[in-house]
Amino acid sequence: MSGFELSCPVPLPTEERILLAHGGGGRLMHELIERVFLAAFRDPALEARHDGAALEVDGVRLAFTTDSYVVRPLFFPGGTIGELAVNGTVNDLAMCGARPLYLSAGFILEEGLPLETLRRVIEAMRQAAQRAGVRLVTGDTKVVDQGHGDGIFINTAGIGLIESPLAIGPQRVAPGDAVLVSGDLGAHGVAILSVREGLEFESPILSDTAPLWEPVEALLRAGIEVHCLRDLTRGGLASALNEIAQARGLVISLEEAAIPVSEPVKGACEILGLDPLYVANEGRFVAFLPASQAERAIEILRSVPVSSGAARIGSVLEEAPGAVVLRSRVGGRRVVDMLSGEQLPRIC
Amino acid sequence: MSGFELSCPVPLPTEERILLAHGGGGRLMHELIERVFLAAFRDPALEARHDGAALEVDGVRLAFTTDSYVVRPLFFPGGTIGELAVNGTVNDLAMCGARPLYLSAGFILEEGLPLETLRRVIEAMRQAAQRAGVRLVTGDTKVVDQGHGDGIFINTAGIGLIESPLAIGPQRVAPGDAVLVSGDLGAHGVAILSVREGLEFESPILSDTAPLWEPVEALLRAGIEVHCLRDLTRGGLASALNEIAQARGLVISLEEAAIPVSEPVKGACEILGLDPLYVANEGRFVAFLPASQAERAIEILRSVPVSSGAARIGSVLEEAPGAVVLRSRVGGRRVVDMLSGEQLPRIC
Repeated sequence: MSGFELSCPVPLPTEERILLAHGGGGRLMHELIERVFLAAFRDPALEARHDGAALEVDGVRLAFTTDSYVVRPLFFPGGTIGELAVNGTVNDLAMCGARPLYLSAGFILEEGLPLETLRRVIEAMRQAAQRAGVRLVTGDTKVVDQGHGDGIFINTAGIGLIESPLAIGPQRVAPGDAVLVSGDLGAHGVAILSVREGLEFESPILSDTAPLWEPVEALLRAGIEVHCLRDLTRGGLASALNEIAQARGLVISLEEAAIPVSEPVKGACEILGLDPLYVANEGRFVAFLPASQAERAIEILRSVPVSSGAARIGSVLEEAPGAVVLRSRVGGRRVVDMLSGEQLPRIC
Repeated sequence: MSGFELSCPVPLPTEERILLAHGGGGRLMHELIERVFLAAFRDPALEARHDGAALEVDGVRLAFTTDSYVVRPLFFPGGTIGELAVNGTVNDLAMCGARPLYLSAGFILEEGLPLETLRRVIEAMRQAAQRAGVRLVTGDTKVVDQGHGDGIFINTAGIGLIESPLAIGPQRVAPGDAVLVSGDLGAHGVAILSVREGLEFESPILSDTAPLWEPVEALLRAGIEVHCLRDLTRGGLASALNEIAQARGLVISLEEAAIPVSEPVKGACEILGLDPLYVANEGRFVAFLPASQAERAIEILRSVPVSSGAARIGSVLEEAPGAVVLRSRVGGRRVVDMLSGEQLPRIC
């Protein structure tokens, strides 16, 4: 929260109502979090604005995180709400530099849901947990009356063990850092939207949902001095980088030509009117680390299948105030802002 | 899970659908958990069938638990969904004999929700967290379109520290144990139902929602050899005791005359056609401990305000098979079964 003043937040007018955009990962969501949640709970762990909380319990360093999943439809090319619910929380732990260990799962089921649908989702969760090497150890089930839910909502929370002595988080991002991305962007959002819009592509675009601890562990084991990690979910690359740039009062400069986007995703984004920089991913992250280690870090990432498409996409500059700027293919320079709402509701 | 065989569960027919009763805390919910969740995830922590998982991370003993809250209405006499969401998870940790430390909170908001409603709920959570001595350290917000949610659903997960060397859990319940209850039963369920039914009582019946670590800590500090603890939420006393009796293959014998139910709750239950043994509580628990320590344990519990109405209500007998029996006021003996569905949907 460096650079923000929480002691006297501007109150939102009381007649305001929640909009879909409050859940979209953009500016409205961040305002809601600042003004309602952070203002009430005021906790250093919350104010670190990380993907999870880094805690010390009896001398052991833990990461703790939670996410709810309300994606629609429940089944989409490349995955289900079940994989998302496991991988999303596993990845938030990984972004804290923590080895994912334990998950909880809370289900809110809508009356009338076919049991077979639930079984398929549970099976996807089981496989995803196995792949990610986490144990699902505690859970809860609630049922709401028909018309007051939407099939299945899942919340997962996770506990991870921080083994590395590095303090990984937005507070460590520094001028001179290289900005790396772990692979091509936009597949998850496009996969979801193509189902909703009934679009069919020659080769279907699959969600990138995947666990990300393996590449993070590889970086840490190799002694890379990772400063900050962030997975690129709701709001995509643009929102994740804006959050960090604004929190730290630094400029993040990106090279458009270096940002990996696959041809099918590029084409689909053009048809659908989406900007891949803002589209959600469920198996991609950015890493901030000293520029001198960037080349080696990319080599390490590329040796792990899930991050085989890793690339350096930019740098952190000394300039203020906090912003993300993009040097376009033709050489122009434009500000990449945070969206005020969202491109796609219920993407995760 | 002692006494249960999970390796070849009877499959539920695939055309079956989720009913409200699957969330009611009764037999249907337990079947769903056994056959779908436990069968898929098979983990010793889940199979302990406790209110949370007891874990060891790097030599530190932790409890980890989660619950989603879908109570309707959001505001009711004596509390809101906010207090429930904090106290419920705090209490599940306390039932593991763990000092509640950290909470996560995941919100699923319905489009159109007045922001003022959210603020009131958040303020209730803040106060409840303060009262319970826990920190809310990480969170998440999702928004679903109008008609696919119901105002606010909250999931909380919690981490607690197990300081006592005792292994508290159903596996420790033994013949000869005394069964204690921490106070009078049924207030939460009656408070909720009275709002729903538009009933007004001379003196309003308030939900008993409250954090329960203080009385548990008092028992442990005094060296009481606590065998098992369970809070009496969905399904009430009858369901909690049936779960334990069946899991352990023991008979729990209750004295009807000893079970504390306040006069207003008794009266309301008669009007509403409820049996207080099955009505949900949000600030009451049962404790199993050696009969020789029962008197002292009651004294200790009564010295803490939230458990000032503690009483011994029964004993664990050697007999099999697992069942709960009640000796009625007039001397008869009847089996107190688990409900198949629920008395009250969306009670928490």
